[in-house]
Amino acid sequence: MNRLFHFPLSPFCRKVRLTLGEKRIEVELVEERYWEQGAEFLRRNPAGKVPVLRLGDRVLSESQAICEYLDETVPEPQLIPRDPMKRYEVRRLCAWFDDKFHHEVTAKLHYERLMKKVTKSGYPDGKAIREGVARFKYHLDYMAWLLEQRRWLAGDQMTLADFAAAAHLSCLDYGADVDWHRQSAVKDWYAKIKSRPSFRSLLADQVPGSPPHADYANLDF
Amino acid sequence: MNRLFHFPLSPFCRKVRLTLGEKRIEVELVEERYWEQGAEFLRRNPAGKVPVLRLGDRVLSESQAICEYLDETVPEPQLIPRDPMKRYEVRRLCAWFDDKFHHEVTAKLHYERLMKKVTKSGYPDGKAIREGVARFKYHLDYMAWLLEQRRWLAGDQMTLADFAAAAHLSCLDYGADVDWHRQSAVKDWYAKIKSRPSFRSLLADQVPGSPPHADYANLDF
Repeated sequence: MNRLFHFPLSPFCRKVRLTLGEKRIEVELVEERYWEQGAEFLRRNPAGKVPVLRLGDRVLSESQAICEYLDETVPEPQLIPRDPMKRYEVRRLCAWFDDKFHHEVTAKLHYERLMKKVTKSGYPDGKAIREGVARFKYHLDYMAWLLEQRRWLAGDQMTLADFAAAAHLSCLDYGADVDWHRQSAVKDWYAKIKSRPSFRSLLADQVPGSPPHADYANLDF
Repeated sequence: MNRLFHFPLSPFCRKVRLTLGEKRIEVELVEERYWEQGAEFLRRNPAGKVPVLRLGDRVLSESQAICEYLDETVPEPQLIPRDPMKRYEVRRLCAWFDDKFHHEVTAKLHYERLMKKVTKSGYPDGKAIREGVARFKYHLDYMAWLLEQRRWLAGDQMTLADFAAAAHLSCLDYGADVDWHRQSAVKDWYAKIKSRPSFRSLLADQVPGSPPHADYANLDF
């Protein structure tokens, strides 16, 4: 049986879960409290991070490398288009969300407010949260600007870039950190992704002691 | 004329410069003091980062997306092999160096000691440097372990993973932060990369006020 070692509120795990779901690859989800770094987990992935995907006899780590591998070996539906310039744009935006957005928003809101509580690693840093709130506005505006010109974030086709972005936004939405009123184009885009069957597993996530906000799993939010 | 907006001691710019050099794509190098974030630079790349590559009428950012694009459009020499599992391994290691190694070593040694001085942004943090020194040993051992089983980091062929790793090590080597005595396999591997024509431009880099250490450009180090 294929297995994904993951943590429910990790955006990188969520990107992989959405990719697996779209491609209808069945996996057993194994929750990994990665911050406790057990010896067995470190044997599976010396980087000490989630996600780790056991696929047949292979053990894969690093979310972007996993998603590219899945897209190359299970072509339908195609999440990275064939044209080199379109592929570039998908990868640029994946890096935008997994690096820049993660650093400026996810780390400052989701990790400060929710993950510090879950991992019992201190109290939220008010300054970081204020910075995260301010940067989040800029990112929502950037997404809306992209979506004015395109049906999906990287072009007219749904791609891995949409899943990278939705993975981060869904983690933030779990803690009610998303201002859905700011940009209707972003809300409409998220509603399309949220209604996909591959998203259901994310909407069912529950972290003990930290339930999601009321509209988290609501398709009409 | 193609242009690369870069900073000489950025590992991400160096990875792109090595890729351009291997593929014999001529570019004019334009030094960008990215931390000053001029309005013109932010127009070129809203992420406010280097490298930014102007290739014909296209403006590309994000080093990994740029390198993948270059490898797809200028196939020789191939830096990401065709087999999906080998491609996975190249991408896993690029992420290893650009994310984990960068966070644990480059940021803690190179940025603390050298870039803080260059950007006039404070004094080195002794605790970060001690952590970086300790983690660097672990990473050199991991590289040696890979190189015991393979000719190059990701397999028997030179790939983008070697350039990602060499880009970080060369920045650290500029400031004499690499213990070349720890693992002879790593030194031998670096000597092979260092002697490539694509590496010459990196060895000629000079940052005013912070010259490289004596053996930085020496092929017999």
